[in-house]
Amino acid sequence: MFLPLQLDRSDASPLQDQLFEQLQEMIISGRLKPNTRIIGTRFLAEQVGVSRTTVLLAFERLISEGYLDTRPGVGTFVSSSIADVQFVGEGSKSNGQFERQAFLRPMVFNARLNSHSKETGSRFDFGSTSSDGTELLPAKILLRKIRDALDKHPHGLAVPQPPGGLDELRRAIADHLATTRGLMTSPEQVIVVLGRRQAFSIVAHLFQRRGDRVILECPTDDDTVAFFETRDAVLVPVPVDENGLETDRLPEEPASLAHVTPARQNPLGGILPVARREKLISWARQAGAYIIEDDCDAVFHYRGAAPPPIAALDPYGLVFYAGSFAKTLGTGIGLGYLVVPSEFVEPALALKTMSQDGCSWLEQILVAELMSSGEYNHHLRRLRKTYLERRDCLIEALTQHFGTVSLLGTEAGTQLTWRLPERFPPAHAVRAMAGERGINLQGSSGRSSTANSACRFRDRALILGYAAMSSARIRQGIERLSGLLRSYNSIR
Amino acid sequence: MFLPLQLDRSDASPLQDQLFEQLQEMIISGRLKPNTRIIGTRFLAEQVGVSRTTVLLAFERLISEGYLDTRPGVGTFVSSSIADVQFVGEGSKSNGQFERQAFLRPMVFNARLNSHSKETGSRFDFGSTSSDGTELLPAKILLRKIRDALDKHPHGLAVPQPPGGLDELRRAIADHLATTRGLMTSPEQVIVVLGRRQAFSIVAHLFQRRGDRVILECPTDDDTVAFFETRDAVLVPVPVDENGLETDRLPEEPASLAHVTPARQNPLGGILPVARREKLISWARQAGAYIIEDDCDAVFHYRGAAPPPIAALDPYGLVFYAGSFAKTLGTGIGLGYLVVPSEFVEPALALKTMSQDGCSWLEQILVAELMSSGEYNHHLRRLRKTYLERRDCLIEALTQHFGTVSLLGTEAGTQLTWRLPERFPPAHAVRAMAGERGINLQGSSGRSSTANSACRFRDRALILGYAAMSSARIRQGIERLSGLLRSYNSIR
Repeated sequence: MFLPLQLDRSDASPLQDQLFEQLQEMIISGRLKPNTRIIGTRFLAEQVGVSRTTVLLAFERLISEGYLDTRPGVGTFVSSSIADVQFVGEGSKSNGQFERQAFLRPMVFNARLNSHSKETGSRFDFGSTSSDGTELLPAKILLRKIRDALDKHPHGLAVPQPPGGLDELRRAIADHLATTRGLMTSPEQVIVVLGRRQAFSIVAHLFQRRGDRVILECPTDDDTVAFFETRDAVLVPVPVDENGLETDRLPEEPASLAHVTPARQNPLGGILPVARREKLISWARQAGAYIIEDDCDAVFHYRGAAPPPIAALDPYGLVFYAGSFAKTLGTGIGLGYLVVPSEFVEPALALKTMSQDGCSWLEQILVAELMSSGEYNHHLRRLRKTYLERRDCLIEALTQHFGTVSLLGTEAGTQLTWRLPERFPPAHAVRAMAGERGINLQGSSGRSSTANSACRFRDRALILGYAAMSSARIRQGIERLSGLLRSYNSIR
Repeated sequence: MFLPLQLDRSDASPLQDQLFEQLQEMIISGRLKPNTRIIGTRFLAEQVGVSRTTVLLAFERLISEGYLDTRPGVGTFVSSSIADVQFVGEGSKSNGQFERQAFLRPMVFNARLNSHSKETGSRFDFGSTSSDGTELLPAKILLRKIRDALDKHPHGLAVPQPPGGLDELRRAIADHLATTRGLMTSPEQVIVVLGRRQAFSIVAHLFQRRGDRVILECPTDDDTVAFFETRDAVLVPVPVDENGLETDRLPEEPASLAHVTPARQNPLGGILPVARREKLISWARQAGAYIIEDDCDAVFHYRGAAPPPIAALDPYGLVFYAGSFAKTLGTGIGLGYLVVPSEFVEPALALKTMSQDGCSWLEQILVAELMSSGEYNHHLRRLRKTYLERRDCLIEALTQHFGTVSLLGTEAGTQLTWRLPERFPPAHAVRAMAGERGINLQGSSGRSSTANSACRFRDRALILGYAAMSSARIRQGIERLSGLLRSYNSIR
């Protein structure tokens, strides 16, 4: 920022005072906004042609009077608290902001960020659905695969990225889906995306107008609710039971989209039976709706074969199938995929291209190498084994401390649902109490959202994730939780 | 795909005929769409409970009659040509497709993909603006930095990605912009994005409504035109001269956005003087417009200091500053950044989060490591030196073959503009002739687009990129071009 300072040497007031006053004025008027980094004192001194000492003295006063903050090792910034005071006491002087509001175009979009204030630092983290890192692929393997990729494609980084993703990766995903999920798709229908959210975004932009009805499971995760709320959809929550979406209760009115998590209802855990999957397809056909099948949890299925994805049962081309690598390779892997009915491939690619250039070559080639070498499947088997052990350990610990427990959603995924006995407080109270004692039960689900508020089980269902802790830690955590709930009951 | 086949063993017709007829019917009716991959014969045999030979015989007939295609090593697919014939001769039988159209919701979005059919395989590529790969950072350095990153952050991939990007990277970019561009910004204002397109998309979603006026330079690159066209903006082209945007010709009517490339007008090459930058800011303030400053080419500036970015001159918080690593680290690096005026940081992050989960951790930490270790700046100096040599070589070759040449945009970037002498055919004809002789002059700019059609210089400006070839290759290419143009003149 080139500060438009004008020092007047013929003026009686000292240069450091002029500097102080002009900077103060810029801050008060809002021309220098809170948290703006200020140019270094050395540069500023050069810019305005005064000694550095003069600048330092002016800065010292600005800091002591609260206009500037120093952040050690980072720099000097306009104080973040200045916004609160600038209209107080400055009255007509601070016209900068008022003028702005008069001439500036209002924002078309002005949503707030959904704060993801995960309780970090909890000793017992039952809130996460993915690994804490100990189950990641070893750095050794990652490095080897990256080296292989760079050997094979020394100029890989220079090649423009195709909008649908790297061919190698699309092929590897298509093969993987065919062999592991029985979903036959051509690589052309596989679009590499940046996580579930981009997948949803593409489908929503294709079909959902402002005011359109969108079917959501109730409950579902808050992110999905927030996504469709921000797109001004009319949310139509459809209840779930222990087998997932109650397809008999789908509305007769038309809808533009239905978002479902059949592999493992998120968060409660029901696995949607084939008959309901077929019912959903025929409902969608009649309602003129498209289905977003969010199949991320299918990879962790612990008993027998998982039912075929809805996309594999769909004869009409109504289903958009979304998966991701975030839960298997780490949330730091941005990649996911969307399998698109063939007639929508081109507009879907056009949409993706509009909002974004290609995904990272490095990450794509890494995942493609892992998949095609078999390393990925090997890793999945390892992960599944680990998570299964942790699940068993969690169930055992619950049984040991609470007797017979009523559980849902144990057959897949990385969390289970405990229906709290009546003698315990409701789930939100348990979560709050536990949080204070270093036990994080706060997943992304079950918080306050319109679509979720009316849900069955609502405040008697405690979701426990078991992916982020060792078995020993899980046992300790449940023991502590048990102590907590016992003391609650003895107090009452 | 689970094919809903029903074989009737009590039926007189052989199983392989039943199989043939049912598959044929599914293909003709459109239930199996062109290019759909068909489940393997072994699986299909198991699924319907017949011998594999039966399936193979049915498939052979489907292939020979053109319903299926085999792609060796890939699989068997519904023939792609089936779409053309299915309504012919099948009449009322093929009601699948008709029914669909009756009940299916029309797409809200239905754009075509802007085809990026770069002439690949040209021996002389003057169409590219970035390296062909030989100037990439060596794999050795990449691997070392990735290893360093994995050593320092062994669980890095497990950490959820902050929506604005990795803190390390945001800090490194803020520092880089402060030291190399004099743009003082706090790391919080830096949003890591996936290339220029996502940067544009965020700003457009913030401020641009359907039908809003958007100022574009004329000419500008086709991608930018296509982007705003698809968003139903009213495009207002403002001419450029050899110094970039003619700010005196900015319209008086309000506009919601102005997209500018002041560091090096894309494609013609003017560098916008400071006075025009200031003029643009005051115009924007009056017009109620926000400015997208596309500063990608600032990194390759060959003479003296580049003028400060518009964002650094802006006292009002009107300027969104976009940069990218695609030209410096390779187009396979998806990352770019958008510096957002502080009051818009939160809605911008919300928008980014809506359309996408975090960017790749691996790529972000790699770039952050390269920047903070100084390796990135070192690489930039190397690149600048290489490109400067190639530019000089190109100018020398042009002068040698064509005498005094009128050039624009030689002071920055990776391409220059040659104003073709009148004795030569117009630029589009030269491009076409050259293309046939293995010389690619077809950049992304200057093609047919509404906003570009009225531009000054239009068909007398030949853009020559010099980043993708060695000096020797550049000399050969210009020699060949010279021969081509000489023979054209001798034919006339």
